[in-house]
Amino acid sequence: MCRWLAYSGSPILLESILYKPQHSLIDQSLHARLGPHTTNGDGFGVGWYGEGDEPALYKCVDPVWNDRNLKELSRQIRSRLMFAHIRASTGTPVQQTNCHPFRHGKWLWMHNGQIAGFAGVKRELVMAVDPALYGSIEGSSDTEVFFYLALTFGLAENPPAAVQRAVGFIERTCRAQGIEHPMRMSVAASDGESLWAFRYSSEGVPPSLFYSTDVQALREQHPEIEVFRTLSDESRMVVSEPLGELAGVWNEVPPSSWGRIREGQDQVGPFIPAAH
Amino acid sequence: MCRWLAYSGSPILLESILYKPQHSLIDQSLHARLGPHTTNGDGFGVGWYGEGDEPALYKCVDPVWNDRNLKELSRQIRSRLMFAHIRASTGTPVQQTNCHPFRHGKWLWMHNGQIAGFAGVKRELVMAVDPALYGSIEGSSDTEVFFYLALTFGLAENPPAAVQRAVGFIERTCRAQGIEHPMRMSVAASDGESLWAFRYSSEGVPPSLFYSTDVQALREQHPEIEVFRTLSDESRMVVSEPLGELAGVWNEVPPSSWGRIREGQDQVGPFIPAAH
Amino acid sequence: MCRWLAYSGSPILLESILYKPQHSLIDQSLHARLGPHTTNGDGFGVGWYGEGDEPALYKCVDPVWNDRNLKELSRQIRSRLMFAHIRASTGTPVQQTNCHPFRHGKWLWMHNGQIAGFAGVKRELVMAVDPALYGSIEGSSDTEVFFYLALTFGLAENPPAAVQRAVGFIERTCRAQGIEHPMRMSVAASDGESLWAFRYSSEGVPPSLFYSTDVQALREQHPEIEVFRTLSDESRMVVSEPLGELAGVWNEVPPSSWGRIREGQDQVGPFIPAAH
Amino acid sequence: MCRWLAYSGSPILLESILYKPQHSLIDQSLHARLGPHTTNGDGFGVGWYGEGDEPALYKCVDPVWNDRNLKELSRQIRSRLMFAHIRASTGTPVQQTNCHPFRHGKWLWMHNGQIAGFAGVKRELVMAVDPALYGSIEGSSDTEVFFYLALTFGLAENPPAAVQRAVGFIERTCRAQGIEHPMRMSVAASDGESLWAFRYSSEGVPPSLFYSTDVQALREQHPEIEVFRTLSDESRMVVSEPLGELAGVWNEVPPSSWGRIREGQDQVGPFIPAAH
Repeated sequence: MCRWLAYSGSPILLESILYKPQHSLIDQSLHARLGPHTTNGDGFGVGWYGEGDEPALYKCVDPVWNDRNLKELSRQIRSRLMFAHIRASTGTPVQQTNCHPFRHGKWLWMHNGQIAGFAGVKRELVMAVDPALYGSIEGSSDTEVFFYLALTFGLAENPPAAVQRAVGFIERTCRAQGIEHPMRMSVAASDGESLWAFRYSSEGVPPSLFYSTDVQALREQHPEIEVFRTLSDESRMVVSEPLGELAGVWNEVPPSSWGRIREGQDQVGPFIPAAH
Repeated sequence: MCRWLAYSGSPILLESILYKPQHSLIDQSLHARLGPHTTNGDGFGVGWYGEGDEPALYKCVDPVWNDRNLKELSRQIRSRLMFAHIRASTGTPVQQTNCHPFRHGKWLWMHNGQIAGFAGVKRELVMAVDPALYGSIEGSSDTEVFFYLALTFGLAENPPAAVQRAVGFIERTCRAQGIEHPMRMSVAASDGESLWAFRYSSEGVPPSLFYSTDVQALREQHPEIEVFRTLSDESRMVVSEPLGELAGVWNEVPPSSWGRIREGQDQVGPFIPAAH
Repeated sequence: MCRWLAYSGSPILLESILYKPQHSLIDQSLHARLGPHTTNGDGFGVGWYGEGDEPALYKCVDPVWNDRNLKELSRQIRSRLMFAHIRASTGTPVQQTNCHPFRHGKWLWMHNGQIAGFAGVKRELVMAVDPALYGSIEGSSDTEVFFYLALTFGLAENPPAAVQRAVGFIERTCRAQGIEHPMRMSVAASDGESLWAFRYSSEGVPPSLFYSTDVQALREQHPEIEVFRTLSDESRMVVSEPLGELAGVWNEVPPSSWGRIREGQDQVGPFIPAAH
Repeated sequence: MCRWLAYSGSPILLESILYKPQHSLIDQSLHARLGPHTTNGDGFGVGWYGEGDEPALYKCVDPVWNDRNLKELSRQIRSRLMFAHIRASTGTPVQQTNCHPFRHGKWLWMHNGQIAGFAGVKRELVMAVDPALYGSIEGSSDTEVFFYLALTFGLAENPPAAVQRAVGFIERTCRAQGIEHPMRMSVAASDGESLWAFRYSSEGVPPSLFYSTDVQALREQHPEIEVFRTLSDESRMVVSEPLGELAGVWNEVPPSSWGRIREGQDQVGPFIPAAH
């Protein structure tokens, strides 16, 4: 069911967060611990903010553990805001246009979870996407449709409100078709300035999600990653599962909540799908 | 802009029609003569009727000229009805779900040409697809939407009528958006019994299309293909461009026409998009 | 460390042995039980004897669990002798030329295991391959070099003797370089007439290997596979791990042994690497 | 028969030299003008010096004209020394380990041309590679073997001497086997400090090769590439075929010559294969 990580802070090499940690995302592609799938080999993707205004993407359908190019690139890509995602498909084809992260303008978006019964509601959901945005949908995944609904409902103006509206709409649409518990999600989104995280489930425990709070603790936890010594106090990571042993470093993101990481004051709030 | 070939007749090895001819489809992938693209390297696909009721598919995103697997398979696949297509993308991504032929139940469908301005009309066209069929659309190509419109308009009952209705609908929708000459097409479709071919353009010369009529002439034209000596008189091929020198063997399919190849009497007729 | 299966008997669809069993090879690609790797996602291959004298191959670098083409092909390929292999690389690149089975003339060859310290002895081993065969080596895997050594030592004339000579040579070469326990192997080979299996390890327990002996029991064990009712008594499978629960159906191939399955009398014997 | 380009100078985005020119390498992948192949779709690769001492590589088996990832990366990779190559295979498989550029330590190497009759001399050539280097050979191409022979003969100490020795050895080995005119080559190599280019043929006209000499003229020739205004006078490109119309900008590298581009004084000299 996918694993992801997002980083915001001092510019560091992608390699530091993608390959070096003990239980890195690469390791999670074969030995994930906190999801229903130990193997996440149905493609991967990284997105990062570097040259220019729009984020760059590198997405492939191959298992990440074999990809030599990604290993090379991770030693060259230095960025202050990076997304990485490994996929375990929930039914839609394995193709580049179904890999995360998704991008629209300066926005990046990735997701772990699924919309239950998506095949039956897809047409309705897609039709609710702003016609001006419809043409930007390239693939066939639930995640991408979810992203375009969030954009339709004002992601660029107010991300928590937009995502809550999108989830509310999805839940209503699914329930009208007899799908009682439609939504499971941990989501990361960014416009290049802030890093937004969301954790919610229509019912039960949502997909796992953790954030790092203490850079000092990060340094102690990962002595093998020298670059952490150079990190600013603002540096943060949000991850599907901890990159190392739980030692007071990784904090669980509460269910039904959202968070915003940015320079200066971070924000948190409750995630409540909009009623209408 | 793609090249394709279709075969109907005695069961023969795919290799005979795909690799052995002088100007085979493999040769056309690098040196096509009658289309705007000499190179057709954006994926390929073959479909054939063999074991079971539904046709089988083998589709790849790689250029056909490099594919070792296809060469192997072509020496093993023996069938009485086969489709083969090499793609030059008109804009949509190169992915397996955008390769032809497309399949729905026992139907196969492939296309050379395009719907002009497709990005702007896609939403309307997709919304006209029968909701019960919508979920079967996997890719993002104009060809696939065209196929599902034809299915919506009754391809299974009356192929010429259904395709004429689909094209009529596409033309009207495009013209309402200021696209004056929307449709260019050569299409092959089959239900495993008949092989249907269509050739039409909203304006000007449609994509090239030829059929073979004389099996005797086929034998004389291609002495290097021994198996043609064993072909029944019913055996026919329909191709985007001739597989060898024009020696009275290849006959141009008239513009704005359709044809039906099957055991017994073949059929032809004018192709006139339906007014409504 | 790879999993494989081989079938010899009445012509059946590849699907019957590759997809239908409870713990099929496809299931083993994600949930293998008897090897060091639960995941075998570094490519796969199938080989089979059909049209013509030489066997056909279909090999891909992608994880087998995602491959739509293989699913399609398995419903069309009907053969009396088939090999299937899923790979977990022991270090050499994931590329089509490193996927099994390997082919030379009418011979097929696949392997689970490895030559320890291969990188250090590769040059010596390759130099011992018959210069007339050297040019046929396409990849960089230990399995392929092992195959060509077996061919060099007379695989076509006397397979058990040839493979024992090859392993003897490999062991001597490795031990001269300080590698004490070089060889772990379960191997399948065929010339289209007989199916040969080998199980050996320089030390300790060799990779798991089982054969099916009782077609009657196979029918009882796999009621979901109708085709087994049509199998001849000669039909046999050799597998890395059982395709279903151990119910007296799967028999362990003894360590340090070889077997030959063919029409008429099968053969077995001890596997003893040749001293020189 | 491949096309390549190499850049040395002020750090610029890869996109500037790879995508922006009128007759870019991307354009040459479909419409090359100066080689035997108009299409070069058998894989591609880029190498560049960035973070760390060793150059980074990005190599793929797909046609370059379709690769979205490369387009993204080219807008992010900024480097002072870059190699790019598009491949038309001369017989060896299309796989990542046969794509150029090749790397060994801090060396990059790429080639347009071939060793005639390579299959027959490969064993001898490979055996002449320093045994300590043998294990670094990953693929099966003539270019890679040529590279490792150059390394064996002292590429790191004296590139012109080493490459002349390698070519001399290759010519002698081939002629002993009756191959009269073995070598056709344009080669680029670099250690991160200097950019070396070589142009030679055993007989007749070697593969085309050009260098840019006048940065002022480059600016006038390519007004669409703004970044050229920021280039230092030292900036140079070496290309298989000009990236724009011949307007006194592109100078033919003389046959049988080598050149060295670096800060300060460049060097040129005659290329004469060593006699022994």
